Amino acid sequence: MYKAPVEEIAFTLKHVAGLGEAMEQGLLGDLSEDLLDAILTEAGRFAEEEIAPLADIGDKQGARHVDGGVKTPDGWAELYRRWAEGGWNALACPEEFGGQHLPQSLHMATFEMWNACSLGFALGPMLTIGAIEALNAHASDALKEKYLPKMVSGEWMGSMNLTEPGSGTDLGGMKTRAERRPDGTYRIFGQKIFITYGEHDFTDNIIHLVLARLPDAPKGSKGISLFLVPKFFVNEDGSLGSRNDLHCHSIEHKLGIHGSPTCTMIFGDGKFGSEAGAVGWLVGEENHGLAAMFTMMNNERLGVGMQGVGVSEAATQKATAYARERLQGRAPGWKGEGMSPIIEHPDVARTLVTMRALTQGSRAMTYACAFAIDMAMRLEDPEAKRHWQERANLLTPIAKSFPTDAGVEIASHGIQVHGGMGFVEETGAARYYRDVRITPIYEGTNGVQAGDLVGRKLPQSGGNHVRGFIAELKEIAEQVRGSNLGGFGNTADKLDASIADLEEASEWLLAALAAGKATEAASGATAYQRLWGLTLVGCYLAKGGLVDAGDGRQPGRIALCRFAAENLISETASLKDRIINGVDALAAARMLLAS
Amino acid sequence: MYKAPVEEIAFTLKHVAGLGEAMEQGLLGDLSEDLLDAILTEAGRFAEEEIAPLADIGDKQGARHVDGGVKTPDGWAELYRRWAEGGWNALACPEEFGGQHLPQSLHMATFEMWNACSLGFALGPMLTIGAIEALNAHASDALKEKYLPKMVSGEWMGSMNLTEPGSGTDLGGMKTRAERRPDGTYRIFGQKIFITYGEHDFTDNIIHLVLARLPDAPKGSKGISLFLVPKFFVNEDGSLGSRNDLHCHSIEHKLGIHGSPTCTMIFGDGKFGSEAGAVGWLVGEENHGLAAMFTMMNNERLGVGMQGVGVSEAATQKATAYARERLQGRAPGWKGEGMSPIIEHPDVARTLVTMRALTQGSRAMTYACAFAIDMAMRLEDPEAKRHWQERANLLTPIAKSFPTDAGVEIASHGIQVHGGMGFVEETGAARYYRDVRITPIYEGTNGVQAGDLVGRKLPQSGGNHVRGFIAELKEIAEQVRGSNLGGFGNTADKLDASIADLEEASEWLLAALAAGKATEAASGATAYQRLWGLTLVGCYLAKGGLVDAGDGRQPGRIALCRFAAENLISETASLKDRIINGVDALAAARMLLAS
Repeated sequence: MYKAPVEEIAFTLKHVAGLGEAMEQGLLGDLSEDLLDAILTEAGRFAEEEIAPLADIGDKQGARHVDGGVKTPDGWAELYRRWAEGGWNALACPEEFGGQHLPQSLHMATFEMWNACSLGFALGPMLTIGAIEALNAHASDALKEKYLPKMVSGEWMGSMNLTEPGSGTDLGGMKTRAERRPDGTYRIFGQKIFITYGEHDFTDNIIHLVLARLPDAPKGSKGISLFLVPKFFVNEDGSLGSRNDLHCHSIEHKLGIHGSPTCTMIFGDGKFGSEAGAVGWLVGEENHGLAAMFTMMNNERLGVGMQGVGVSEAATQKATAYARERLQGRAPGWKGEGMSPIIEHPDVARTLVTMRALTQGSRAMTYACAFAIDMAMRLEDPEAKRHWQERANLLTPIAKSFPTDAGVEIASHGIQVHGGMGFVEETGAARYYRDVRITPIYEGTNGVQAGDLVGRKLPQSGGNHVRGFIAELKEIAEQVRGSNLGGFGNTADKLDASIADLEEASEWLLAALAAGKATEAASGATAYQRLWGLTLVGCYLAKGGLVDAGDGRQPGRIALCRFAAENLISETASLKDRIINGVDALAAARMLLAS
Repeated sequence: MYKAPVEEIAFTLKHVAGLGEAMEQGLLGDLSEDLLDAILTEAGRFAEEEIAPLADIGDKQGARHVDGGVKTPDGWAELYRRWAEGGWNALACPEEFGGQHLPQSLHMATFEMWNACSLGFALGPMLTIGAIEALNAHASDALKEKYLPKMVSGEWMGSMNLTEPGSGTDLGGMKTRAERRPDGTYRIFGQKIFITYGEHDFTDNIIHLVLARLPDAPKGSKGISLFLVPKFFVNEDGSLGSRNDLHCHSIEHKLGIHGSPTCTMIFGDGKFGSEAGAVGWLVGEENHGLAAMFTMMNNERLGVGMQGVGVSEAATQKATAYARERLQGRAPGWKGEGMSPIIEHPDVARTLVTMRALTQGSRAMTYACAFAIDMAMRLEDPEAKRHWQERANLLTPIAKSFPTDAGVEIASHGIQVHGGMGFVEETGAARYYRDVRITPIYEGTNGVQAGDLVGRKLPQSGGNHVRGFIAELKEIAEQVRGSNLGGFGNTADKLDASIADLEEASEWLLAALAAGKATEAASGATAYQRLWGLTLVGCYLAKGGLVDAGDGRQPGRIALCRFAAENLISETASLKDRIINGVDALAAARMLLAS
């Protein structure tokens, strides 16, 4: 059973992501170490005691489409209400609407724990919070006052309606249309697919944010507007009125996250209401919907990264526990009677330590990204704000992609450690493998993230943000070299080598972009993203290992860091080679893809 | 829909694995190029037209445990009979019992195609053929005459009963017991788990091979005997008699291969028969059962490798077809109107070419292994026989593990290329990801394979077999360097580098083994196995690219080889580094695994 790694989470937030220093400097409001620890402890308890026991039924029973509505798994609606009543939804929301305005980094750390127990459950709240952010940033005061207090408290949930059959990554091809009405409202007509928690029984009302196109809108992605479309109309006194003209047509039969309803939503076909057309209210300006959507999507990308971290932690714990108990064979050097626990076999031990290093590295990079968002939001000095915004921009695609790719890899390792039992559904290892597979896909595939990293994030400030970050990483390697802590082995040299690979690849890509070689740059984008991820794993684990945690040294953290440095990150050399020297071979091989 | 790659399969058999030359030299009996092509073509047709259409129902409906028996998916029993009537079961079986005695390599190539359509379907036949091999090698003439003709024709199927709850990889802990009876038969009592096709409705009788322990047997794996235990007794005239005392207690609910029943079998609890005890006949000698089981298991390991190849091919085809049709975004350099097919995006193209290179490399190494088995079986010169037996021994763990690990990776890529649709079960990409996940586990986990490779196969002839093989690989790299075929780019240098990594790692491991450093050697075993796999991918693709296929050059094969050389195989450097320099870090990190 999942044990929330509260101490590790708190350590990583404070000492690796940077919250410790920021709290000392008073940059995070009233947040103190004690309060941080207390919140994490309580979140850990809620995750372990409330969510974890309902995860399996969510997977087995799944969400069901019944009588035009969606019935969530037994116990989930009550679970959601307890979760919202605990204040977890409001944690990082604006105080103005009832939120606690605690840091994003703390909020993301709680989501790691919800996700570790059940991706399917935590996904609805994640999207609601995205909707709150979009409304808070772009909606009129009237809309905010009407909807945000109940969305922040969790009394109502939100949903995001972007995707259509021909329009996923590229939203320019969208067909859902909006018509202006004289009263200032709009009527929405169209079909949306893959709408997570588009319909459910958690809350009485659901506030849909819907992208649609006005009749006179410019073509492509510059002609998209964002609308708030409630399931039930809200009266002046806040009570619910009649049903709006939208409904869930069907739900998908998916590989994983069975408890999360993935809905096809129909807007404006006349099923509800006196005339056809779902009534919507404009959010932000006409034809500027995509910008509003991106506000929300950026944080959701990090939220998906947290899903990777959560599943990685849970899968690692489960596999480690099994490997301690399962007896099979005799490991070399085993002195005990009879068979040894499989954890004694070097191959199994290597797998488990790899899982652990990748999990902790993934955790560190997601928290560092969240902390950068906090600083960008809270600091007032424009230069500092810009620095942290660039850091958040850069880290977002990395923190979305690396932990989710690692999550798939780790969940697969988790099955492997269980042997044949891992393939049996009742064991539970297979659920992680199924659930986590969506995470490299949604909120922008990891390939899309890589394109964003190379095409938009690397060139920030002419490449100087990346150069500055690389200098910080070199400083970590220097600290390892200069430390008198035993146990680091060849860590400093290995970090140096990976950082040099990162630097060389960055400069090569910047030069390619400057020369207009878009195809060449794009060809190495995924490798570059992984090169960043691996280098950060090494550097952040080293940063943790360098911390004096009271007794001067932490042998476990140093050992994990050394393992990553000497066993995992040297892959960066081949990634760099692929980026710089692999382009022509890829171009030539594309002949094979012609039909 | 799956299109059997008959031409590619035939090319790989003839020009890469070595069948072309062997046929010319008359080493493969009557087999000619024409016959080979005709058999492959007919197998491709059967796979595409007969198996493929029944794959989805097998996944959705699954095998069901009904009234103590197992009902296979609708249409599968009839499909099996058509398959057996087509002579596919008998292809490589001994002529003495009705088989065609065609090469193992051809037999494995047909299994690639069955597997590509449905792992769950093809698994039963694969195990039956393993049972035939074990009986043919070890059973008495009386048993062979009674059972083999109907097993070879496919009228009866076989099953393998090894695993028990506490005894999987390590069979020494087995508890199923056998008692001698005065009439020379035995009575078997016990429970076996994970028994593939232990019960089904394909055939009237099922011939179980069961491992059990005699009362006076030595402890551990030297006290295990093998028994033939039929579901129904067979009368002297070959007709079926009464039911033997064994039955299927339940079947597993699995991540994948849903159509294949995975049974818990109970022997001798008195449910059938006048007295308790399943009647069994000894196969081979008492207490020598494990050797008999290994006869069969070696070929099954290669058979599992073929499962990896089959799924890889199918997943690659599916993703490539989707990427050609799906329009999204505008790829750099795209000149067309509107959105481009996603195959035009460099990142997607890279993924698809990677899938293709790994698939073809996996195919080549499995066929090469099968060809080595053929040569070891058919050549009479003792020195040649030994050479090929060592080659088969060496290649078996590699050909089991690399294609199955690659299969998991490729199936995961296949989902990714489909984006959100990949996560929807109806699309079919998810089935490959679920089905193939068992392949790195069963018939000896890939970790067990790696231990076998390092501990037993590498040291064959004091390491000289591996040294000789490495010399052959260097020769391929030299041929690339000396060829006047354009398009190879830096292939020769890249091959040289990977082969040098392989050589250095091999010598380091041989020295470690010689020094009794078993833990150190085992620590790098999985990395060493992958190092072999990647090097073979590069070398075998190059061997294919060097072939003069009539018109002098094959740009596609050369381009694929160059892609693998310049984009995939340079990972060998980090694998070598991990093997040689990663051991101490792993040893130190094991402190983290203490509970």
